[in-house]
Amino acid sequence: MGEKFHQPVDAAKVPRFAGHATFMRLPAVASAEGLDIALAGIPWDGGTTNRAGARHGPREVRNQSSLMRSTHHVFKTEPFKIANIADVGDLSVNPIDLLDGLKLIEGGVADIVNAGALPLCVGGDHLTTLPVLRAVARKAPVGLIHFDAHSDTNDTYFGDNPYTHGTPFRRAIEENLLDPRRVVQIGIRGSIYSPDEHDWAKAQGVRIIYMEEFSARGPEAIMAEVRDIVGDAPTYVTFDIDSIDPSMAPGTGTPEIGGFTTREAQDLVRRLDGLNLVGADVVEVAPPFDLAGMTAIAGATILFELMCVMARQVDRCRLR
Amino acid sequence: MGEKFHQPVDAAKVPRFAGHATFMRLPAVASAEGLDIALAGIPWDGGTTNRAGARHGPREVRNQSSLMRSTHHVFKTEPFKIANIADVGDLSVNPIDLLDGLKLIEGGVADIVNAGALPLCVGGDHLTTLPVLRAVARKAPVGLIHFDAHSDTNDTYFGDNPYTHGTPFRRAIEENLLDPRRVVQIGIRGSIYSPDEHDWAKAQGVRIIYMEEFSARGPEAIMAEVRDIVGDAPTYVTFDIDSIDPSMAPGTGTPEIGGFTTREAQDLVRRLDGLNLVGADVVEVAPPFDLAGMTAIAGATILFELMCVMARQVDRCRLR
Amino acid sequence: MGEKFHQPVDAAKVPRFAGHATFMRLPAVASAEGLDIALAGIPWDGGTTNRAGARHGPREVRNQSSLMRSTHHVFKTEPFKIANIADVGDLSVNPIDLLDGLKLIEGGVADIVNAGALPLCVGGDHLTTLPVLRAVARKAPVGLIHFDAHSDTNDTYFGDNPYTHGTPFRRAIEENLLDPRRVVQIGIRGSIYSPDEHDWAKAQGVRIIYMEEFSARGPEAIMAEVRDIVGDAPTYVTFDIDSIDPSMAPGTGTPEIGGFTTREAQDLVRRLDGLNLVGADVVEVAPPFDLAGMTAIAGATILFELMCVMARQVDRCRLR
Amino acid sequence: MGEKFHQPVDAAKVPRFAGHATFMRLPAVASAEGLDIALAGIPWDGGTTNRAGARHGPREVRNQSSLMRSTHHVFKTEPFKIANIADVGDLSVNPIDLLDGLKLIEGGVADIVNAGALPLCVGGDHLTTLPVLRAVARKAPVGLIHFDAHSDTNDTYFGDNPYTHGTPFRRAIEENLLDPRRVVQIGIRGSIYSPDEHDWAKAQGVRIIYMEEFSARGPEAIMAEVRDIVGDAPTYVTFDIDSIDPSMAPGTGTPEIGGFTTREAQDLVRRLDGLNLVGADVVEVAPPFDLAGMTAIAGATILFELMCVMARQVDRCRLR
Amino acid sequence: MGEKFHQPVDAAKVPRFAGHATFMRLPAVASAEGLDIALAGIPWDGGTTNRAGARHGPREVRNQSSLMRSTHHVFKTEPFKIANIADVGDLSVNPIDLLDGLKLIEGGVADIVNAGALPLCVGGDHLTTLPVLRAVARKAPVGLIHFDAHSDTNDTYFGDNPYTHGTPFRRAIEENLLDPRRVVQIGIRGSIYSPDEHDWAKAQGVRIIYMEEFSARGPEAIMAEVRDIVGDAPTYVTFDIDSIDPSMAPGTGTPEIGGFTTREAQDLVRRLDGLNLVGADVVEVAPPFDLAGMTAIAGATILFELMCVMARQVDRCRLR
Amino acid sequence: MGEKFHQPVDAAKVPRFAGHATFMRLPAVASAEGLDIALAGIPWDGGTTNRAGARHGPREVRNQSSLMRSTHHVFKTEPFKIANIADVGDLSVNPIDLLDGLKLIEGGVADIVNAGALPLCVGGDHLTTLPVLRAVARKAPVGLIHFDAHSDTNDTYFGDNPYTHGTPFRRAIEENLLDPRRVVQIGIRGSIYSPDEHDWAKAQGVRIIYMEEFSARGPEAIMAEVRDIVGDAPTYVTFDIDSIDPSMAPGTGTPEIGGFTTREAQDLVRRLDGLNLVGADVVEVAPPFDLAGMTAIAGATILFELMCVMARQVDRCRLR
Repeated sequence: MGEKFHQPVDAAKVPRFAGHATFMRLPAVASAEGLDIALAGIPWDGGTTNRAGARHGPREVRNQSSLMRSTHHVFKTEPFKIANIADVGDLSVNPIDLLDGLKLIEGGVADIVNAGALPLCVGGDHLTTLPVLRAVARKAPVGLIHFDAHSDTNDTYFGDNPYTHGTPFRRAIEENLLDPRRVVQIGIRGSIYSPDEHDWAKAQGVRIIYMEEFSARGPEAIMAEVRDIVGDAPTYVTFDIDSIDPSMAPGTGTPEIGGFTTREAQDLVRRLDGLNLVGADVVEVAPPFDLAGMTAIAGATILFELMCVMARQVDRCRLR
Repeated sequence: MGEKFHQPVDAAKVPRFAGHATFMRLPAVASAEGLDIALAGIPWDGGTTNRAGARHGPREVRNQSSLMRSTHHVFKTEPFKIANIADVGDLSVNPIDLLDGLKLIEGGVADIVNAGALPLCVGGDHLTTLPVLRAVARKAPVGLIHFDAHSDTNDTYFGDNPYTHGTPFRRAIEENLLDPRRVVQIGIRGSIYSPDEHDWAKAQGVRIIYMEEFSARGPEAIMAEVRDIVGDAPTYVTFDIDSIDPSMAPGTGTPEIGGFTTREAQDLVRRLDGLNLVGADVVEVAPPFDLAGMTAIAGATILFELMCVMARQVDRCRLR
Repeated sequence: MGEKFHQPVDAAKVPRFAGHATFMRLPAVASAEGLDIALAGIPWDGGTTNRAGARHGPREVRNQSSLMRSTHHVFKTEPFKIANIADVGDLSVNPIDLLDGLKLIEGGVADIVNAGALPLCVGGDHLTTLPVLRAVARKAPVGLIHFDAHSDTNDTYFGDNPYTHGTPFRRAIEENLLDPRRVVQIGIRGSIYSPDEHDWAKAQGVRIIYMEEFSARGPEAIMAEVRDIVGDAPTYVTFDIDSIDPSMAPGTGTPEIGGFTTREAQDLVRRLDGLNLVGADVVEVAPPFDLAGMTAIAGATILFELMCVMARQVDRCRLR
Repeated sequence: MGEKFHQPVDAAKVPRFAGHATFMRLPAVASAEGLDIALAGIPWDGGTTNRAGARHGPREVRNQSSLMRSTHHVFKTEPFKIANIADVGDLSVNPIDLLDGLKLIEGGVADIVNAGALPLCVGGDHLTTLPVLRAVARKAPVGLIHFDAHSDTNDTYFGDNPYTHGTPFRRAIEENLLDPRRVVQIGIRGSIYSPDEHDWAKAQGVRIIYMEEFSARGPEAIMAEVRDIVGDAPTYVTFDIDSIDPSMAPGTGTPEIGGFTTREAQDLVRRLDGLNLVGADVVEVAPPFDLAGMTAIAGATILFELMCVMARQVDRCRLR
Repeated sequence: MGEKFHQPVDAAKVPRFAGHATFMRLPAVASAEGLDIALAGIPWDGGTTNRAGARHGPREVRNQSSLMRSTHHVFKTEPFKIANIADVGDLSVNPIDLLDGLKLIEGGVADIVNAGALPLCVGGDHLTTLPVLRAVARKAPVGLIHFDAHSDTNDTYFGDNPYTHGTPFRRAIEENLLDPRRVVQIGIRGSIYSPDEHDWAKAQGVRIIYMEEFSARGPEAIMAEVRDIVGDAPTYVTFDIDSIDPSMAPGTGTPEIGGFTTREAQDLVRRLDGLNLVGADVVEVAPPFDLAGMTAIAGATILFELMCVMARQVDRCRLR
Repeated sequence: MGEKFHQPVDAAKVPRFAGHATFMRLPAVASAEGLDIALAGIPWDGGTTNRAGARHGPREVRNQSSLMRSTHHVFKTEPFKIANIADVGDLSVNPIDLLDGLKLIEGGVADIVNAGALPLCVGGDHLTTLPVLRAVARKAPVGLIHFDAHSDTNDTYFGDNPYTHGTPFRRAIEENLLDPRRVVQIGIRGSIYSPDEHDWAKAQGVRIIYMEEFSARGPEAIMAEVRDIVGDAPTYVTFDIDSIDPSMAPGTGTPEIGGFTTREAQDLVRRLDGLNLVGADVVEVAPPFDLAGMTAIAGATILFELMCVMARQVDRCRLR
């Protein structure tokens, strides 16, 4: 069956440092037609309020994803044998015009969705998830599993600007893209603007799981609750790399100490297996602040973990 | 009430990368008069026996402290609303003359103490804590909660030199600045000079909690014991950044693997809440060895955690 | 006379690594009132089309400017004795909204100009020079001496966007802020978009001196021509750090090999002495791409050189 | 007794940054004659399939080993008082010719073994362990405790090449250097080539303990099983630095997130105490990818931990 | 005519940080069929005797070549309008087996030559030029213009090994691939193995121009002589990045201070215009030792300069 | 004759990355007895007023000196065949006590001088040159050729402290170690403390050649004058690495842009050939601020150049 699908270059024949740097060393394809999962870059950080650089994320995650092999060692899943996956390139963006940028990204993801593929995107800053949700939740609001140090449900910045990487999920709830009672945020931590910063989100029904609660209860209990919250309905997963500790993911715009270890992060993502995902992303990898490619490697590995979960879903659905 | 106190610049109006780099983006003030807590730099590493660089610590901790927001997300404390806090600048030092350096630092801290403010200092190497204690414990010995990889209770180096960053707490006990039965050291680890290196300290009554004991018993039990040891009497807190693992705080002079995670460190510091603190410091941040500002970010966040604990104490005392 | 003016902290008393990081270790003042020269930061890179980061320029140039001493070793000028100079802080900016950013910067520079001080700014990307010129050339177009690898006279990017760091001088000429016959660009080099990329500028009368012509004719002849072109009339100087070779100034967004050495750059700037300057800037220092502070040191030194030239002008005018 | 043995330079007299960079600041000796433990470098990465650089490992581990002091703080062991240990330099290698390299390394280790010393080596990539085993297991197969992210029991690469750093333990089992039922691998993780990648090893009797099993069962249970597996018979220990998390050991050729913390790694190595070791190594430290010497510091500390365990064995055997 | 040829992505529409990282942002094509110039990577450093890493060169030069625009600012040449150029990917290599590596590379270049395209390669270490010459000079020996710090005409290393990056041009002369009287080496410098190290080459007729002679005579005179030496006959150009000063190209295996500036290097390469080139390469870019991408940027720009010279040759020949 | 002298390890047999890191890969010897030239480290930066780190200089210069080969390519000199040269290790220092440090260094150099060898030292900061001169000029004042960005003839710092790296040559003149009319300083530049900062030195007869004069007159004329000034009498050479441009030598405490290129520096040092040298040093290499070993490579190469000049002098004297 595997031969029907795109395969990565074989590293026992072509060394990992050789060849073009595509996601997972998969073929670069012109469109998502025929794909089950479309790996797409969104090189845009127009919403960044402090340290920009996530625009360079897709290129470096592609670069470091050459380290990924073809089988998940826990699931024993071979994603490229059970799902058709390829690199559809970077979506069009506009580094100068924020509103145009949002529109272009939405259009790019809509093309993927319309082609029948699941989008698995690499940002870009967290504002990129807003136009992705506009494309993915066009027909009905979806649930959200959100790994992050920050809730990103603030209202406005710098005057009345509604669109920054600190606001996407407030906008998404307001735009009815998300069902707030099926939104759960995990890993939230760090100093905040005011004691009631998270009250709006909580009032909508969003479940915020602070890092301290995660430390106390552990991944198994937390993810059981998360799965209860989102249930079987369509759900989007967004993974902000700053949910991981800055020692393991220094290349990001708003580091907060006390984050997930990568071991915890992998465990959490694997526990998404079996859900009904409509897409996912890894965002806020900012290579100019990275060290030795460490953040891009972490991002590429989380991408691989998400891809395996999604490939298993594709396979499961195909069998039905 | 908040308007009576100094406030940091508002990052939703002025971006975090803008403006002068003061501690917590607070005003730079000329003296500690009127302050409850004085944030002071001590740019001095005259006691460093191996890799110097902590002299650059205050500047970089100031720089990275721009990432701090105004509310503690666990305590929900807004420190700048309940205590008057500002940046009093760097104390005078002497990079060439060790004894003059010690005298200058003591004088600078005495000015803060005399103004009625609690000193919260950023070193500098760990020898800086000795003159701070001389100023803070002028009238009576104080207790000490000491987070560190090293006990820093050695006797002499390089001949009979009594003052290095490996000796401050021996000197402080000898000078009756510390009550050794109210001194507790947490996180001690790494190879030592001889099997009896810590015997002098233990003989004075110092409680040394090695990292292995911390790993076995956990933060809750450890900090309960720590609080028992120091009790309600005046206590100083000194946080050597090398207590944190070098992967999370590489920018320091004497790294020892196997350290606290930042998550553990934050938990430990929060458990100081309610004690009777007469001052605190964060030392041994050495920017020339740092990576991506990681150590300075950790130092700034620990400073923020200590500041919140101290602001809560100020508030508590004011209400009495 | 020196006592009437602001003085930097004395490094033979306070070490260079100590104290707050203001430009040249001068006092931070609240406004330009009473100043002859106002050192201002413009932390904004909203016009950057590739690698952002110049928003962090002012902070790092301030940091490294601590290395500057108080006397120019060639002119023997003591700028702080002949002109009143201080750090007026960073101008207000908006990292999310380009048009608001342009307006805020113009307002900030207008305040300096209205206070009677000469603005000496540190960007920020090169688009920041457009609002500076709007403030400086409010009454009549000025001349421009422009050190850069790029002409920055392109028309539009990413659709019809007129404002990027590749377009400021086209806009400035169109807005009649610059007299194009008194505009000279030095150091231009690197691959271009099309053979006629510079034709528009040349058609307006702009003199473009490519790096190859500089190499052939040398600084003395080149700067004699430059001085002829701008004459005695009001002239603005803009120094893009990417005019310097990327090995000496790697921390910039659009590096082009084959640039000026710093020795050449210092020589060129000193040859501005005696002109009629209405302001100057150093732009495109992007710390996230810098190495060992090298670019910020170069930027701070060029700032010092420009400041000395401007202080001598202030002194000359005062004596008349 | 200590005076009979080689001693490191005393850091309370000679600073750590001074003097030649030998392992543990011990004397450099010409041969292993008279030694109990021979510290040897193997600067060779001829088997590396992706990112080379481990050839530079010995030099940097030597450099950072200057941080080691003379007593183990948990065991209270003073290794240099109970065993004669010195730095025998780097073994001969050949960076251009793989087969010659293997032969040279085997010869170098054989000289150590023949001199009656235990080899404690610093690689080099993991293929270096194959010739070490050829020298150490010349008479009979030995057991192996193998800390690693990768099983390194693949068959061939790039055609039919049998020798890479992904194959040494397959070759060693085939060559009867290892008793596969006494081989245990700990920390294995990361994506693999195929679901049956580890089947060959398991079929031989190798016990593979994945990181997930380690996380679930903890170091005490795991190492109890490990000790059961190898028993009292001669056993070699090989420590691939990539078993440690890349945030703590970034300087390695094939990083895999989700690794051991250094605290866990130290705990694991200490639990080797009392076994019957015939040699040990630390491999895959690749300085060109390191950050702030972090990986070399970790490698040097693990080397110190192994050395203490081996010195205690030497002392134990001497007393019998 | 331009429309007939491959074009790079337009950076005024798609930002430079977006899209796949191919050479010059040109299309990645499967073979050299139909091309005038084939840009190819040779990710191999099997001949490196000291610091490996050039295997990563092609990927990083591709990455940084995104900075190149489409027109040469001195020639006013638009290479993509006058020649059909594309990225043919990386040639097959073998990181473990030197002789197989040499054979694979020769085969890959032969494919390009047989397709009628000029190979323009990015190494890889300098030994890669040997198999390139085997493919290019299959029928008759060619001339060589060789920019380098080292003559690379040594005989053997590490026993009798004939193939290292210090020997390719001795082998090429012995194999009659080069006409030694038409070989010229420019920029040679640095300490050597013995006073007669270069005597063999000189005895064959090779002209060695040391850096000191270059400094004394200047680029114009030197390149006039170079052109005389090679004449109109087929000539290969090899550019070792270590000919450039290590401050401008630190990312290389064997740095030698006192090198060409990039400004000089660009001048030298432009003076190749009009010769009869059969191919060219840029080698020894070793990203693990690079800083801020500086060496890869220099390598990409020299590649662009060579490509423009070769495109002009293609255009000239077509017109005949 | 060569066999009588110490020889470096042969890099065509032992790779450059292998073996202990001694200066030039020469034997480490216990004393200077029998040597013509003693290579010694002085790991001390007790006089540094801003950025410390030169204490780490000897170790890193040793490390990078592995790149040096055995023959000077211009002189064709084989230094190790005409002079007996070895690495005598690091002199004793005291990182905590300035006056003790000065005494220890003087004693160490006196041992070398008394053994009849010429000291060729690697600092350490520039204050280390003072005790070296005390040992070298014990009997009579010597001349000085001083390459530096700074004159280092200031009086006192931080109160009345007479000993910093900004004062050694004032002290040396006062102590009659130097004949000021035979002292020449080359490369002086950068902002200064006051217009008369250099007046004291000039009044003693010191010749200061600013960088601007060097640029104007060129190395040949400058060095002719230098040789005239020092004549045939005993002369010491001190090379501060900050005389080289910070882009080529970033790892130093007080960088000043506009410095010598390494090509110029090599040319200058070679023009010392034939003088009567009593010793030399390379100082102010500060590895914590270095990039990719660049400064240490430059320092090691300048050391090699000085060593060749001194070996030629040894050979010349022997023949007489």
